[in-house]
Amino acid sequence: MNPHVPSPARLAEIHQLYHLQSHLIDAGRAPGWAATFTVDGSFTSPTYPASVTGTAALTAFAERFAADCAADRVTRRHVVSNVALTGDDGAGTLQVEAYLQIVATPEGGTPHTERFTTLTDRVVHDGDGWRIAARVVHRDGTPVAPQI
Amino acid sequence: MNPHVPSPARLAEIHQLYHLQSHLIDAGRAPGWAATFTVDGSFTSPTYPASVTGTAALTAFAERFAADCAADRVTRRHVVSNVALTGDDGAGTLQVEAYLQIVATPEGGTPHTERFTTLTDRVVHDGDGWRIAARVVHRDGTPVAPQI
Amino acid sequence: MNPHVPSPARLAEIHQLYHLQSHLIDAGRAPGWAATFTVDGSFTSPTYPASVTGTAALTAFAERFAADCAADRVTRRHVVSNVALTGDDGAGTLQVEAYLQIVATPEGGTPHTERFTTLTDRVVHDGDGWRIAARVVHRDGTPVAPQI
Repeated sequence: MNPHVPSPARLAEIHQLYHLQSHLIDAGRAPGWAATFTVDGSFTSPTYPASVTGTAALTAFAERFAADCAADRVTRRHVVSNVALTGDDGAGTLQVEAYLQIVATPEGGTPHTERFTTLTDRVVHDGDGWRIAARVVHRDGTPVAPQI
Repeated sequence: MNPHVPSPARLAEIHQLYHLQSHLIDAGRAPGWAATFTVDGSFTSPTYPASVTGTAALTAFAERFAADCAADRVTRRHVVSNVALTGDDGAGTLQVEAYLQIVATPEGGTPHTERFTTLTDRVVHDGDGWRIAARVVHRDGTPVAPQI
Repeated sequence: MNPHVPSPARLAEIHQLYHLQSHLIDAGRAPGWAATFTVDGSFTSPTYPASVTGTAALTAFAERFAADCAADRVTRRHVVSNVALTGDDGAGTLQVEAYLQIVATPEGGTPHTERFTTLTDRVVHDGDGWRIAARVVHRDGTPVAPQI
């Protein structure tokens, strides 16, 4: 980790990216969520059998998330915290780490945290804004995820 | 939603407003909490029977929250996350969305999340700072709140 | 509390400090965590029998935290929220308040919040960056901590 002090502009953009991203997937805005990744961005999580790569696959992933929630009659929220810049190679690639809790509320029920995960992301600027090029999710309570 | 990139200054002010707001109500600082809304600001939540509008009513609302916690011998915290600017009309009115969990700890007990809510706010600048002009709260696990 | 509007640069640095700090202790990076305090910084919490003061003692404290988690076969996360500047004496000393939840996930189990705490910190700039000079932790559900 590189505990350097990021520029306020960069940190503001990164916070907005991460905080908005959850609203997009939780509201079923699958193309918007996919667009927070680069066009060849990848998402690797032990909760799912394989990495998800590229805009079309990421969009389908987010659509499935929304469909599963509807089928389960559960509202699930991606609660992000502790967004921190932990690396900067000086050539336009950042490392961002964050915590992500999935909080579920069944219809007529009360909320509970289904899983606690950590995000370790490679983040790049595509000319228009910062995008996630590669996300690796680790789920607490499980062995360290193999690098797929 | 408009995933534009906000200015760092604006995002800093909005974050400070939302993060401070919880400390104010949770510490029983009712007038301070009410002052995070415009003088004719409104708060609409399905948890309460009617909208609360204007500084005096908002102050009384926050005082009642503190009195209820004391009567219940419970500490309740407004935990805000995922504060994102999701709209800007270019004429001084912002839309801000955030998650808000009410976490309760009874005397001698352990914490649990009583409810998971989402905030959809209209935010304006009153010359002195950003203030919430209208807040609509939705509670997860319930039908979508009617627009009162 | 002083609900003034902090500069974007200052708020960015404070957010980065608080958000990174949790990653450091949770990843077992004890010296890195201790370095988020001044060299004579102090940490006072009702969870522990006495204040912890100075880099060596803070490092040992963070090492013990990691060792206890390993012995318990539990992953514990310091989830920070509502980081707000609540004071500025104009001479380089800030007050920062935040919420801090300890969320634990046992091996093979699901997460739960072990305790909800509030942080009230004195924060100073040591020429290199903002550091915590004194942290007082209060744990919800217990009487207000005596000032040790």
